[in-house]
Amino acid sequence: MALVVDAMGGDDAPRSPVRGALQAAADVPGPIELVGLPTAIEPLLQGAASGERIRVVAATEQIGMDEHPVEAVRKKRDASLVVAARRVKELGAEGALVSAGSTGAVLAASLLHIGRIPGVERPAIAIVLPLFTGPVVLLDGGANVDCRPSHLVQFGVLGRVFARVVLGIPEARVGLLNIGEEETKGNELTIAVHPLMRRHVPGFVGNVEGKDVFAGACDVVVCDGFVGNVLLKSIEGFAAALLGEIKRAAAASVKGKLGGWLLKGALSSLRARLDYRSYGGAFLIGVRGVVVVAHGRSDEVAMANAVRLAHRGVRGDLVASIGEAIQRLPEEVSSHAGS
Amino acid sequence: MALVVDAMGGDDAPRSPVRGALQAAADVPGPIELVGLPTAIEPLLQGAASGERIRVVAATEQIGMDEHPVEAVRKKRDASLVVAARRVKELGAEGALVSAGSTGAVLAASLLHIGRIPGVERPAIAIVLPLFTGPVVLLDGGANVDCRPSHLVQFGVLGRVFARVVLGIPEARVGLLNIGEEETKGNELTIAVHPLMRRHVPGFVGNVEGKDVFAGACDVVVCDGFVGNVLLKSIEGFAAALLGEIKRAAAASVKGKLGGWLLKGALSSLRARLDYRSYGGAFLIGVRGVVVVAHGRSDEVAMANAVRLAHRGVRGDLVASIGEAIQRLPEEVSSHAGS
Repeated sequence: MALVVDAMGGDDAPRSPVRGALQAAADVPGPIELVGLPTAIEPLLQGAASGERIRVVAATEQIGMDEHPVEAVRKKRDASLVVAARRVKELGAEGALVSAGSTGAVLAASLLHIGRIPGVERPAIAIVLPLFTGPVVLLDGGANVDCRPSHLVQFGVLGRVFARVVLGIPEARVGLLNIGEEETKGNELTIAVHPLMRRHVPGFVGNVEGKDVFAGACDVVVCDGFVGNVLLKSIEGFAAALLGEIKRAAAASVKGKLGGWLLKGALSSLRARLDYRSYGGAFLIGVRGVVVVAHGRSDEVAMANAVRLAHRGVRGDLVASIGEAIQRLPEEVSSHAGS
Repeated sequence: MALVVDAMGGDDAPRSPVRGALQAAADVPGPIELVGLPTAIEPLLQGAASGERIRVVAATEQIGMDEHPVEAVRKKRDASLVVAARRVKELGAEGALVSAGSTGAVLAASLLHIGRIPGVERPAIAIVLPLFTGPVVLLDGGANVDCRPSHLVQFGVLGRVFARVVLGIPEARVGLLNIGEEETKGNELTIAVHPLMRRHVPGFVGNVEGKDVFAGACDVVVCDGFVGNVLLKSIEGFAAALLGEIKRAAAASVKGKLGGWLLKGALSSLRARLDYRSYGGAFLIGVRGVVVVAHGRSDEVAMANAVRLAHRGVRGDLVASIGEAIQRLPEEVSSHAGS
């Protein structure tokens, strides 16, 4: 087993990936491989305590956040991300990839070099939302913007396995994101997929509306990647605007300032719970390896958590469990729901 | 001119619609017609100051929030909502409908009895979001869950006219809700519609992501009704969860409690700005009359604001302005973008 970290991905690379890997090595067993420029990585490892379980794998190139993902992955065959993905392919079910590079590039490298689990039509990005009621997995977070019904059925199956293996939720409730609770509500896609999910997705609880999601109505939320991505970015933008406004409102009067100061502890523990770092990133699931896409802004705490999550995926045999669950889906789901 | 209020729609009908109409009559010129059961409405009018400008129109039935919208509108020909819609049809551009009944029923009654403005393919629900950076119009909020490119082009045109006439924004910036800023990003629908909007929608500023919307990147946000509805309900649910959590966090310690108490004024002015009542509801635009759909939970303040908004639409000649703007769109938009 090995956890393979793209040491050159992310805004603060190689510092945060390397430091994060070191931090995680303190409590995660098994070797960690850091892929990237040895001359940039090695100085950061000097004198580190868990250094002996860390190995550096050389890669001379790197992919920038602004490059076209597919082109960059195809052209730069010695990019840290590409080398890391090939390494995970070698390792098979025993390997995991962690990168804070661009989501598009991680997606492209994983599809091209690691490949899909047999039977999985479309790997999906699973995002763990750290809600107040507990963690909720949303998928697809943006890998597949135009979906067929069979894709969404598979997302439900993938998400449920993920929730069990990575989040420790034994019997996850799976909801279909929709605009009404009744089976007949929705757009063409959700109306077509509802009966299929009812028949083929264990733990399916029916349609959920946006407001139900935040009230803890289910553990896994299924939607197409366009809707999922719009939703995630909107919530992010709204939260930032609202917290900023609370700050401004508090600063507008002496009374407010004092109140804000007294509330600081409560608000910052709240912010910490909403922090992307506590979950470490998104997963690309449905590929033949555990793939964690950390936020580009990840610091070493976030990177360490991403490595821990990756380890949980390998230890829980995420890839094999998904393979089995997908094999249990009848052929007809894909063929009937094809159009 | 007349503002026609469905006096039997909403959770608190006929009290809130009647009281709201009375409140609005104090500053809105022209007659207000209250449609519903005279025996239920008249007692509420007794002794009211602006009573002389209010007229009661009899309707013996009413449509409940749980009824199937289209069926109820077809069957109950003497429902307050249906009678009100027919009355607005008679009044033409001089009429406005205000109802706190179910959105689906208001939509059905308006399409069936008032009808579309010539050239408008699909009337849309426009929601005014009271953001911190200023009001933003989002459409479609849920009337059309499956859209063709030509529909979204028209939404952009409708939204811009609406922003000018009702919100007083002279040159509204129109954004296409998408998952990336580049023209090539998106799903099939948004990729197809982008160049059409660039060519045919005045004030088009390109793609906007969810986070840009809340940072004030545009005045009008265009999306299909499925995405719009999911977004609106998610934000609503998230805001409720976040404010509840802040409350809980504050209540968890003596320091927090004191801080919360001191911040109360600031937080409640914040809540007031986010209040649906300050904008009074949603508009159904593209039909041959001004139609305001107030929230089912509207109290008299919200209903009064809804009546004021309706008046602003009539006074600003919303229907004629939309008709002209739609006529200026070349034929090709509909035919080319047809598939």
